[in-house]
Amino acid sequence: MEAQKQLLVRSVLDAWNSRIETADKLFSALTDEQLQQEIAPGRNRGVYLLGHLTAVHDKMLPLLDIEEQVYPHLDEPFLNKADKTVPAIPSTKELRENWKTINSKLSTHFSKWSADEWFKKHTAVSEEEFAKEPHRNRINVVVGRTNHMQYHIGQVALLKK
Amino acid sequence: MEAQKQLLVRSVLDAWNSRIETADKLFSALTDEQLQQEIAPGRNRGVYLLGHLTAVHDKMLPLLDIEEQVYPHLDEPFLNKADKTVPAIPSTKELRENWKTINSKLSTHFSKWSADEWFKKHTAVSEEEFAKEPHRNRINVVVGRTNHMQYHIGQVALLKK
Repeated sequence: MEAQKQLLVRSVLDAWNSRIETADKLFSALTDEQLQQEIAPGRNRGVYLLGHLTAVHDKMLPLLDIEEQVYPHLDEPFLNKADKTVPAIPSTKELRENWKTINSKLSTHFSKWSADEWFKKHTAVSEEEFAKEPHRNRINVVVGRTNHMQYHIGQVALLKK
Repeated sequence: MEAQKQLLVRSVLDAWNSRIETADKLFSALTDEQLQQEIAPGRNRGVYLLGHLTAVHDKMLPLLDIEEQVYPHLDEPFLNKADKTVPAIPSTKELRENWKTINSKLSTHFSKWSADEWFKKHTAVSEEEFAKEPHRNRINVVVGRTNHMQYHIGQVALLKK
């Protein structure tokens, strides 16, 4: 049983790690100019999706009870506002670095948590709710965020020549 | 321990089910004409991605040891060949039905498997390999396919007005 539980955690983590690796390769392969382009006419630019994914992953730090969000200034342009509605956003170079920093922090913690630590509640659920809905745990957050990342990475991939 | 294992299976299944539901809504909201359009200039058409996802999910039936593939004729146009390189593909109406049929078959089995059945090997791995790599199980296939679906659904969503 214990072994199977660890296998399941591993499946979820392998999926996260391999998708982060693919996303890193994709962003590295795209130039700053390519990221300035819209993924389809009238849609989000690549750079917006880079900022959006970075902000969503940054918020995983407090959600998973790791530490405070590192770049709260990304919330306004990349979570609260739509693309091309904010006068100035951080440089692409800065966003690329932020993306790496956040994912590196996450992976450091992910690699050292025991299976039991993965089953702890996330911070957006109260103890009372968690007693009734024990699936609202850390592993569930990572399953959801992996899917979210894939949704947008499939879009960013359209910028490749 | 047993409870936690079931929670993990539930997280993975909830993610699958909710993404299938979202994908169904998206495909239903798009007209046949919209699905004929390219998701971005020069890229795959919506109808190709519908066929591609249907073929990939169809192949999950033998991979998860449920039954034979139902629509093997979808392999050639939607897995082996690129979009717009095959003279004739099935009608969009037919593909919409195939998509529903396959996902319904999968969900029927998913909902009745015990946690232990989820840990059985998938059919693309031998008994010998599985003994060494026990993460190559059914649940791992579903984690991977959920991510694959999200990747393309993020693209199909670009066809929405």
